Amino acid sequence: MVDIPDSHPRKASLLARQSMTEAAARGLLAESAMIAHGRGEAFDYLLGERTIDSAASAISEAASRLRNAESPVISVNGNTVVLAGEDLVRLAAIIECPIEVNLYYRTSERISGLLSLLHEQREAVSSGTPPDGWLGDWKKRVLSVDILGADADDRIPGLEGPRSLCCANGIGGADVILVPLEDGDRCEALVALGKQVLVIDLNPLSRTARKATVTIVDEVSRAASELVVGALTGGNPSEWNNEECLKDALNAMMANQLNAF
Amino acid sequence: MVDIPDSHPRKASLLARQSMTEAAARGLLAESAMIAHGRGEAFDYLLGERTIDSAASAISEAASRLRNAESPVISVNGNTVVLAGEDLVRLAAIIECPIEVNLYYRTSERISGLLSLLHEQREAVSSGTPPDGWLGDWKKRVLSVDILGADADDRIPGLEGPRSLCCANGIGGADVILVPLEDGDRCEALVALGKQVLVIDLNPLSRTARKATVTIVDEVSRAASELVVGALTGGNPSEWNNEECLKDALNAMMANQLNAF
Repeated sequence: MVDIPDSHPRKASLLARQSMTEAAARGLLAESAMIAHGRGEAFDYLLGERTIDSAASAISEAASRLRNAESPVISVNGNTVVLAGEDLVRLAAIIECPIEVNLYYRTSERISGLLSLLHEQREAVSSGTPPDGWLGDWKKRVLSVDILGADADDRIPGLEGPRSLCCANGIGGADVILVPLEDGDRCEALVALGKQVLVIDLNPLSRTARKATVTIVDEVSRAASELVVGALTGGNPSEWNNEECLKDALNAMMANQLNAF
Repeated sequence: MVDIPDSHPRKASLLARQSMTEAAARGLLAESAMIAHGRGEAFDYLLGERTIDSAASAISEAASRLRNAESPVISVNGNTVVLAGEDLVRLAAIIECPIEVNLYYRTSERISGLLSLLHEQREAVSSGTPPDGWLGDWKKRVLSVDILGADADDRIPGLEGPRSLCCANGIGGADVILVPLEDGDRCEALVALGKQVLVIDLNPLSRTARKATVTIVDEVSRAASELVVGALTGGNPSEWNNEECLKDALNAMMANQLNAF
């Protein structure tokens, strides 16, 4: 890793880029993953690389909906595991839900590489400090998080080919799905099944952002870290106006741009 | 190549992405190239994937400055050659200037791979149809375009290490440089030498965009194609207000976003 001084104003962004480059070299990412990451960088830059108020509200709402779900699940792809895997393991431990590796461009090599990385992350999180406000046996709780994805024994209706595959005890049977960085088609197919779909997407104009039940317009590692806090503090789901939330994110980006000159 | 129907509204963008993915697989691109491409995609998306009026003006201005230069040069990196190489060969033929392969992350493998690709592109352009309005021996003119970069025998003062290297009969001795997709540091160093620096940059807030003499806020392949037209139609350089041009591009992006809801 190149050494980036703590004082660098864009340190977090540059570290994320290094992690992605290394994961790509290890074969963990699809060809399009780096391009998708670059798109995210551009939108985050417009956002000022910070969690805006409406995103913080969306994070609380998503955390409440996960806590109140019958069968919640966290669906992750390569970029998500690389950028936010450990915090999502923490979140899964608090919510007591499984994590499913589910890839748009599914290959058995990448599935098994990401499952290994998630197992390493679960191990690291289990022996680390519990989040503030946690009561109970942290290590045991973390190690009980199911990591799914190896056996895709179910299908998402309305999609074709490998991208329709999922796990029956994960996405297949879930009522609430947190799926950071999802594709528009799949987001739409999951919503059509009557599931609540909670997404993290830096582009407030994307089809995913517009189709989701709750859209967190924020960078995935910042959002995952705040979801852990939200899951511990609790609260009940509200009547959520997702379109207002997306408009607010656009306004924040535009206000940032105007201030630039 | 995956077959994308002509009717797809984002066909050009998807084909560009495929070209980039293939070039990366051939080792022609630096690790950060795909991420940079993704950032460009996001800004182009905000722009509506079209050449806005102020960008068209910047293209005319840049073409005029290249035509009126004493020693113009076109400096290209991997992304530029992959996305717009053939049109830049056409432009170099019309302007009668060299093309210099000049890489921020310089390796001899990538330099020679890109030189080979440019030679292939020059060959293809020389045997193709001349641009509308061209009079004269097109094949001869195209084949006379010098392709530089193998022997970096000069340095850009103010920069350190491999990224300071350049060719004396290219960037070193040029008064006007068209350098699509340039890094901020290098743009600044070239401007500090009193050179006119013409850039193509989709992010109107980037350091490169703000430091350049003329900034074309447009996707590189669209801009290169229009530069060919501009170089043939001519005109004289004007008093150019680059800040106005950048503000207009920001406004266009914001107007697009507002229209989205």
